[in-house]
Amino acid sequence: MPGNSIGKIFKVTTCGESHGPMLAGIIDGVPPGLSLNNKDIQYELNRRRPGFSKFTSQRREKDKVEIFSGIFKGITTGTSIGIRIKNIDIRSQDYSEIKNLYRPNHADYTYEKKYGIRDYRGGGRSSARETAIRVAAGAIAKKYLKLQHNIKIRGYLSQIGSIYCPFQSWEEVEKNPFFCSNSEKIKKIIHFIKKLKKSGNSVGAKITIIAKNVPIGLGEPVFDRLNAEIAHSIMSINAAKSIEIGDGIHVAKQTGVEHRDEILPNGFSSNHSGGILGGISNGEEIIVHAAFKPTSSIKIPGKTIDTFGKKRFIITKGRHDPCVGIRAVPIAEAMLAITLMDHVLRFKAQCGK
Amino acid sequence: MPGNSIGKIFKVTTCGESHGPMLAGIIDGVPPGLSLNNKDIQYELNRRRPGFSKFTSQRREKDKVEIFSGIFKGITTGTSIGIRIKNIDIRSQDYSEIKNLYRPNHADYTYEKKYGIRDYRGGGRSSARETAIRVAAGAIAKKYLKLQHNIKIRGYLSQIGSIYCPFQSWEEVEKNPFFCSNSEKIKKIIHFIKKLKKSGNSVGAKITIIAKNVPIGLGEPVFDRLNAEIAHSIMSINAAKSIEIGDGIHVAKQTGVEHRDEILPNGFSSNHSGGILGGISNGEEIIVHAAFKPTSSIKIPGKTIDTFGKKRFIITKGRHDPCVGIRAVPIAEAMLAITLMDHVLRFKAQCGK
Amino acid sequence: MPGNSIGKIFKVTTCGESHGPMLAGIIDGVPPGLSLNNKDIQYELNRRRPGFSKFTSQRREKDKVEIFSGIFKGITTGTSIGIRIKNIDIRSQDYSEIKNLYRPNHADYTYEKKYGIRDYRGGGRSSARETAIRVAAGAIAKKYLKLQHNIKIRGYLSQIGSIYCPFQSWEEVEKNPFFCSNSEKIKKIIHFIKKLKKSGNSVGAKITIIAKNVPIGLGEPVFDRLNAEIAHSIMSINAAKSIEIGDGIHVAKQTGVEHRDEILPNGFSSNHSGGILGGISNGEEIIVHAAFKPTSSIKIPGKTIDTFGKKRFIITKGRHDPCVGIRAVPIAEAMLAITLMDHVLRFKAQCGK
Amino acid sequence: MPGNSIGKIFKVTTCGESHGPMLAGIIDGVPPGLSLNNKDIQYELNRRRPGFSKFTSQRREKDKVEIFSGIFKGITTGTSIGIRIKNIDIRSQDYSEIKNLYRPNHADYTYEKKYGIRDYRGGGRSSARETAIRVAAGAIAKKYLKLQHNIKIRGYLSQIGSIYCPFQSWEEVEKNPFFCSNSEKIKKIIHFIKKLKKSGNSVGAKITIIAKNVPIGLGEPVFDRLNAEIAHSIMSINAAKSIEIGDGIHVAKQTGVEHRDEILPNGFSSNHSGGILGGISNGEEIIVHAAFKPTSSIKIPGKTIDTFGKKRFIITKGRHDPCVGIRAVPIAEAMLAITLMDHVLRFKAQCGK
Repeated sequence: MPGNSIGKIFKVTTCGESHGPMLAGIIDGVPPGLSLNNKDIQYELNRRRPGFSKFTSQRREKDKVEIFSGIFKGITTGTSIGIRIKNIDIRSQDYSEIKNLYRPNHADYTYEKKYGIRDYRGGGRSSARETAIRVAAGAIAKKYLKLQHNIKIRGYLSQIGSIYCPFQSWEEVEKNPFFCSNSEKIKKIIHFIKKLKKSGNSVGAKITIIAKNVPIGLGEPVFDRLNAEIAHSIMSINAAKSIEIGDGIHVAKQTGVEHRDEILPNGFSSNHSGGILGGISNGEEIIVHAAFKPTSSIKIPGKTIDTFGKKRFIITKGRHDPCVGIRAVPIAEAMLAITLMDHVLRFKAQCGK
Repeated sequence: MPGNSIGKIFKVTTCGESHGPMLAGIIDGVPPGLSLNNKDIQYELNRRRPGFSKFTSQRREKDKVEIFSGIFKGITTGTSIGIRIKNIDIRSQDYSEIKNLYRPNHADYTYEKKYGIRDYRGGGRSSARETAIRVAAGAIAKKYLKLQHNIKIRGYLSQIGSIYCPFQSWEEVEKNPFFCSNSEKIKKIIHFIKKLKKSGNSVGAKITIIAKNVPIGLGEPVFDRLNAEIAHSIMSINAAKSIEIGDGIHVAKQTGVEHRDEILPNGFSSNHSGGILGGISNGEEIIVHAAFKPTSSIKIPGKTIDTFGKKRFIITKGRHDPCVGIRAVPIAEAMLAITLMDHVLRFKAQCGK
Repeated sequence: MPGNSIGKIFKVTTCGESHGPMLAGIIDGVPPGLSLNNKDIQYELNRRRPGFSKFTSQRREKDKVEIFSGIFKGITTGTSIGIRIKNIDIRSQDYSEIKNLYRPNHADYTYEKKYGIRDYRGGGRSSARETAIRVAAGAIAKKYLKLQHNIKIRGYLSQIGSIYCPFQSWEEVEKNPFFCSNSEKIKKIIHFIKKLKKSGNSVGAKITIIAKNVPIGLGEPVFDRLNAEIAHSIMSINAAKSIEIGDGIHVAKQTGVEHRDEILPNGFSSNHSGGILGGISNGEEIIVHAAFKPTSSIKIPGKTIDTFGKKRFIITKGRHDPCVGIRAVPIAEAMLAITLMDHVLRFKAQCGK
Repeated sequence: MPGNSIGKIFKVTTCGESHGPMLAGIIDGVPPGLSLNNKDIQYELNRRRPGFSKFTSQRREKDKVEIFSGIFKGITTGTSIGIRIKNIDIRSQDYSEIKNLYRPNHADYTYEKKYGIRDYRGGGRSSARETAIRVAAGAIAKKYLKLQHNIKIRGYLSQIGSIYCPFQSWEEVEKNPFFCSNSEKIKKIIHFIKKLKKSGNSVGAKITIIAKNVPIGLGEPVFDRLNAEIAHSIMSINAAKSIEIGDGIHVAKQTGVEHRDEILPNGFSSNHSGGILGGISNGEEIIVHAAFKPTSSIKIPGKTIDTFGKKRFIITKGRHDPCVGIRAVPIAEAMLAITLMDHVLRFKAQCGK
């Protein structure tokens, strides 16, 4: 009921703050018999982790994952899987100046008003550091979905600021630190980010996540439509401000004829719907777009108040991504994997043989 | 776990098909002591119901609601509230032709593949008829939120096809059958819909929902962020394809300076964030946008297959809205009310005095 | 989260008061393709309903069930099933005297203190009338479990007051109005109840419920052990005060050797454990015992207070069972069926093929 | 949905096996502002931990708890609390002999049939070792309930084998290793257990748990009655076979007059109901009894089969409690605390000011 769990059958519960000793998660509902080891998870964590490119936060975390329960002889036992990731590179001094200030567009203000207390060493639970456990849990889901159903979940950066990056190739995505599929845009992005960093500003971004080979029938009627559940899980990622399925926002100006995916004996003639009809997967690619706001921590002074309500100016120093949307790619892939995994199991429960 | 419930403390569970005898819902978690009668609910149902304007479906349903439990002497008792709405104007013959056909962009295909059976008399649970119970449940939430917190939830049509309808006035919204706030656009919309109906085509739309006076502190960290929960509930409405909070999709091109809502002693200087920071309400207006795809039932022939997999052409007759996005306004208001109500109670549980 | 739902995948939600127009329930998670009609449910409702024997309440309710959604052409569609039962024989005048009095051992006092309001026409939600919907939902579960797994759930009265009724035959159970399996005890019970009714007193009882052919593997580790979930569902029946699995309370004085069910190549040598080991079904009969307190409404004057806190005497008139434990048999069967059904689906989700 | 979580608002999720590196738990829903440190938890863990008396298992675990999230400057922040306890004294060789054998009355057989895999190093998740995290979570609940409502939860051994131990004094309970409140029975118990250990046998027990100062109004109608929820949580403890509220099993032979707790201006005249009426707390002491089966691991040879289905004899060596019911006292206290805590928060959600 409180907010630190997601999923109904495949259920992920997390804890840990950006400046505490570690992050941890309990992943419940993993079917028994899945081959799983630390490496399976580490691969995905490495895609998300900071400090390995000069275009992301310089906080250097190895994000070394340790599975400490739920596995016996390399195989899942069907019981709850415990994972943890230690925090290594904590510099609390970075944050001491903002102890009594609310950083605009951060969660400082709302957390303190809600709870009456705030871990001012960093973002606490509202920090993007928390997403490391999501990626770890998503890696388990990804592996299961791949092995059992050949489902493949991949994402790419589709827009950063005013630079649009139409899809070109999946190979390219893993070759650059921006998850950009379009080799022609890389230079432009590098130039843009360098300029941004210099000015102390940040920028928003849009990403696209695609799931292939999703079986027909995932999603529940009415409130737990697959699109609603995906919207929930993707929108729960830090900084997410929009979520679209298929043609998304563009449907507002389409006519029925334009939007219609005709049905042919060998499948659908188009995929405006993004692979979901009536809230249930139709076997086509599931296509999700999400926009992320610019990093809130910037070095350009802004107005704020302190905890006593007095006017102040603030500059947020520290080691921040100039564009949090970039690293949102592996996180959003993980969230989509978690949601699809949950629905694969829910499908088995009600409609399985 | 199956999909017919929403909410954790304020919990709405529904049943009923478009062509069955009635729709019903059980609303659990309503605090005791709330004055409530059929009229409170009827008002909202009347805003949603079909057949009262020539611009919406001509199915004539009175949508007369009956509360049959949970109320004693006009006051909620704290126990589960039962509501029902009878279906009056059913014409199953309208649908007999499409018994063995999958209507493109409808749920026919996915329901039949998922469940192995489909109620071909109509949309069954996937029909927008189901949303009447949502509106009824939302009316209860709206009343509670208004009385207890002076929260006001309102919506308007912000785009239909290529006609953009910037906000003008709340008074105007209730004066026309389009929930359009902008009096200058009404003629244009009327002209456009008339043309559409004549051609047998349909169109998408975008709506905006705003909640005012929302207290600071609603929403839970990490997975149950208020934005994630709103995304879930709005995206669960039939035909929804995108959901945005605040500046939404536009954040992708904003810089940190542009997006930043500075904090002043008397509140925020702007509301790019749409009233939510770190997943928690910040006291500003909560602003939600959603796009709805064009009505799938159109009279322009399209390709499909029958249940035997053979090529066929289809025209979907019957009494359909040319633009389902219009009537989505009261439905989305209801869903936002349900989600806020749930979070008001969740807040009380953990942080209440 | 409020209390009117049970189950996670097979989920039953109910509403309706003893003196309102009807009782209703929404049963979600029923797999598609199950043949189901009103008769399947009516059979079980008739076993529970009052007014058909002089040894139970004289309130005459037909308890005619109506399924109004979730079924198409006699087959479940996989969507939520709506059921309702009208209240026919309401006599509110029976209760007017006790409007301002708290009936001892009833829920009057606690409901009013909790909610600040009480439906004094009758027990409201705390009335055993509410259990009719449980029996209806249980009938659906029973049918599914029988057809899919040949699971058979039956119960009998094992004790009433000081009369112990050791098991004799299942045939006998349906032949007498006491669900007594032991023909030799019938006369004694009749004599005892007649005397009780004359004196205006009531009595407690103990019942035994047995599930046969339960597959190995139902139940989840740690908190959702099958025994814990059964304890929850049976203890949620009005007037239940104890629940035992297998040897139950007698294990306190057993030694390890005495309690041990040895394992032989063809099964277990005994069933002290009542069919559950480590919280998971082991394929043996699941054996559950439950004790129910005497009916609280008795005609022998007792001390109480009125709603102003003043000393009063009370006699509870009306049409009450002299022993609520008797009719608990079909209710407890239903609750066990609901719990097993939920776990059959949970098993499929995580461990199904 | 899988079984490793309990609670709806105060929610405890656990992982970790008896022979893995550690046990861990995530406790979500703790209100912010509670002073909390390791010592608060350690006190309760020490009451449960093995190896500190010759009458319990000789496995020597320090059970040193570490809170690693959710606390800032000694105060709960309202976010999820992570705790862990390392396993120190693991001797896997103790178990190697039984790798291919099913230990009677253990979970070996059911886990292997359910999951197709079993952690044969020990009980895995079915081991009582898992309960350490329950006690830790319960300690947090206990502290909150004590500080906010002055609720006091205590338990004692009421029966071991044929030795009945009527309540005498709470002071005595903490003075002996049996949680026995009755000083006159200690010698008899010591003598009995010594004899048992010598013979290699084990014995069952019954315990009583009492909660004082519970406010009126906890518990939800119908399915989530307080007694049902308590039954669930206590019955989820390893080896529990019965649960009773108030007069429990004895109500079967009581008459209405005998069982009736009359209401006087200053409270109830008696407490046969055990503090719960209509599923809601009435302000009296909540009284719970539970029976635990004898330890399954005994040194007296018994028949079993191996994983190939062949007849075998088994002796379970290792370091086991001769009576698991003894250490069930602090565990059951913890479970009752967890359930009451959850309901205190649920009450606030729906009926709080």
